Amino acid sequence: MSSLPSSVTPLLLSIDHVGIAVPDLDAAIAFHRDVLGLTVVHEEVNEEQGVREAMVAVGGDPTGAQIQLIAPTGPDSTIAKFIDRSGPGLQQLAYRVADVEQVGAALRAAGLRLLYDEPRRGTAGSRINFVHPKDTGGVLIELVQPGGE
Amino acid sequence: MSSLPSSVTPLLLSIDHVGIAVPDLDAAIAFHRDVLGLTVVHEEVNEEQGVREAMVAVGGDPTGAQIQLIAPTGPDSTIAKFIDRSGPGLQQLAYRVADVEQVGAALRAAGLRLLYDEPRRGTAGSRINFVHPKDTGGVLIELVQPGGE
Ligand SMILES: [Co+2]
Ligand SMILES: [Co+2]
Repeated sequence: MSSLPSSVTPLLLSIDHVGIAVPDLDAAIAFHRDVLGLTVVHEEVNEEQGVREAMVAVGGDPTGAQIQLIAPTGPDSTIAKFIDRSGPGLQQLAYRVADVEQVGAALRAAGLRLLYDEPRRGTAGSRINFVHPKDTGGVLIELVQPGGE
Repeated sequence: MSSLPSSVTPLLLSIDHVGIAVPDLDAAIAFHRDVLGLTVVHEEVNEEQGVREAMVAVGGDPTGAQIQLIAPTGPDSTIAKFIDRSGPGLQQLAYRVADVEQVGAALRAAGLRLLYDEPRRGTAGSRINFVHPKDTGGVLIELVQPGGE
């Protein structure tokens, strides 16, 4: 007896990325590339989110789950506050979805709170929203509808 | 100019799972199944690790990255201490490897500390070790060599 609306199943297609809060993006890139042997596939600055970020691929599958290294652009950034409170480390778990509005609406209907009223711009033209960690067992869940870029 | 020994590349094959510390395994299973619409594919108790755990698949790819829900078996469990200190939430990031001894040796040679001298038994007969979060930027990294089960 699922509480899911049948119009939006499956809600979650795959793990899109795991986000790691890092104080220094260049140092984190060097560690993941030179020590762990992973491949940086994308970098950008997202001023609205207050982050400098890099996407890191693991293995040869370009659709597989990636690592997102997330550094603050300044002291008021959400990521700066996260690092002040919890230290650097695992910060978010992002699921890929087909339609972020529909999935967001289904999760709201199940009683979960989303951070934004409307999706915002994420990595590489994706559309994103977040589920409040108080409603998920302590995990900041991101919903990612991939962009066309 | 990589610092990797060429004998063990790639070190990391894929993201095997993302581990979430949960105080109540049954409640966490119900949330992931009934609210997020995901599929529980495995459950076990690992007394040596002090955990009750469930593996949760996301999407239809059985080789894709999964969620590991990890509940303590008792108050002295590493997971109980994690929850006491940090609250429930993201606890570990597990990479799949072909040979946990070789990858562990390569990471030790790069200056990282591993938690165990020898690999231990993980989920479903896998062989695992962990890299100390102080050497990874705050992330508890697990190395998983899948078992034959
Ligand atoms: Co993200
Ligand atoms: Co694990």
